[in-house]
Amino acid sequence: MEEKKEPVILVTNDDGITAPGIRNLVEAVRGLGKIVVVAPDKPQSGMGHAITIGIPLRLHKVNVFDDIEAYQCTGTPVDCVKLAVDKILHQKPDICISGINHGANHSINVIYSGTMSAAVEAAIESIPSVGFSLLDYALEADFSAARKYARIIVEQMLKNRPDKHCVLNVNFPIATPEEIKGVKICRQAYAKYEEDFVERFDPHNRKYYWLTGEFVNFDEGTDTDVWALANNYVSVVPVQFDLTHYKLKKQLENDWNIFSKEG
Amino acid sequence: MEEKKEPVILVTNDDGITAPGIRNLVEAVRGLGKIVVVAPDKPQSGMGHAITIGIPLRLHKVNVFDDIEAYQCTGTPVDCVKLAVDKILHQKPDICISGINHGANHSINVIYSGTMSAAVEAAIESIPSVGFSLLDYALEADFSAARKYARIIVEQMLKNRPDKHCVLNVNFPIATPEEIKGVKICRQAYAKYEEDFVERFDPHNRKYYWLTGEFVNFDEGTDTDVWALANNYVSVVPVQFDLTHYKLKKQLENDWNIFSKEG
Repeated sequence: MEEKKEPVILVTNDDGITAPGIRNLVEAVRGLGKIVVVAPDKPQSGMGHAITIGIPLRLHKVNVFDDIEAYQCTGTPVDCVKLAVDKILHQKPDICISGINHGANHSINVIYSGTMSAAVEAAIESIPSVGFSLLDYALEADFSAARKYARIIVEQMLKNRPDKHCVLNVNFPIATPEEIKGVKICRQAYAKYEEDFVERFDPHNRKYYWLTGEFVNFDEGTDTDVWALANNYVSVVPVQFDLTHYKLKKQLENDWNIFSKEG
Repeated sequence: MEEKKEPVILVTNDDGITAPGIRNLVEAVRGLGKIVVVAPDKPQSGMGHAITIGIPLRLHKVNVFDDIEAYQCTGTPVDCVKLAVDKILHQKPDICISGINHGANHSINVIYSGTMSAAVEAAIESIPSVGFSLLDYALEADFSAARKYARIIVEQMLKNRPDKHCVLNVNFPIATPEEIKGVKICRQAYAKYEEDFVERFDPHNRKYYWLTGEFVNFDEGTDTDVWALANNYVSVVPVQFDLTHYKLKKQLENDWNIFSKEG
């Protein structure tokens, strides 16, 4: 009988390699395959799908997860995935997992999130992936429920081998394992941040601005990630990177007269 | 008769406020409304949907477009849109236009592009928007065809007032106005970059990496932006920011047994 090859699990995040969240993710999947960690050497929250093109990148092997191979990278979360595949693994891993982020990445956050952009980058490269986030910014957040459900989801991914471009955006409510009601598959809620930059003056009396914003959910649906989390479910939103708005495409095709019909 | 209010046109980009591309975009739409420029003070290519949260932002009024109100910002393209609405315009503009980018933003580039992320950010904030890009990286690129078609598209947007969340990704081939065959509405091609980091050693013999990559189009369709551009059409792809992969959602709902049916 042919020996079954151990799956390769690439782990990254956006809070940096020393964040408790990534340590909890490594612990969550320990034993499910060969784990390799490639993560930023500093916090990269809000980096979205940024890549580093103007400066070179560095990669250093580090010993922060006992027996697990780990590297810190000077770049963004997306850079980490690209470098991991090209320069460390020299192959596509079986799965890429990102997180566990300290703070929510539900609804519109998926667009700003370095955690989710790393997962999306993997899926672009034909590596099924999952981004995990906990609705708690605290460094000392309780990851016990997150660990339990992250393992269930990664096991499911490895067992059922979904499409190679599959990306899941998984968020955990602030709750104990006992309080969590289950896992819900959801759509992304329509929500946004209402900006309110804080104006300050430096010691030389020159103005500067801090980005702040209030999260506002405009979506009344009970099939959204925001709803699921508010009701103590783990939310799972499958994410796509074909950004074509097909409905609007059809509408403009009919309504506008500037488009060529030939070709 | 009530006097018709002049539309407000917010202009931004990711190559920075001194790039020829943004100057050409301002010239393209001159006369169509009140133009206000808020753009990065330095190149921000490849910044994707990054926002600045760890450091404060600065905003400086500059005089680079003669009679047109303009500001340079120390942040990312997305920061520029947020700051423009909250601190400069104090209202939503009628349209936000971004570019003209020096280099293609067709297919998967939409995800890495600061130009397109600025446009997407505007649409999240209920401001119809267009990102423009020319398939020529050169500083001295010929923008004459791009100017002509950018004006046609912005006129169309202002006249027909599409959905407030409408975002268009417009790319121009390298061609004269005479060579261009027309404007095609397209879907995003499935294409990606095959990474090949260049390894070098610094004077202290420490390794570093430069991100490079070869663009590979896997999409044979003749309805894609890549096809349109290769055939000398201007490509227009309507873009969405609901990243839910509905098809995969349905599939996983059926195939996986970990999801709760209640709630």
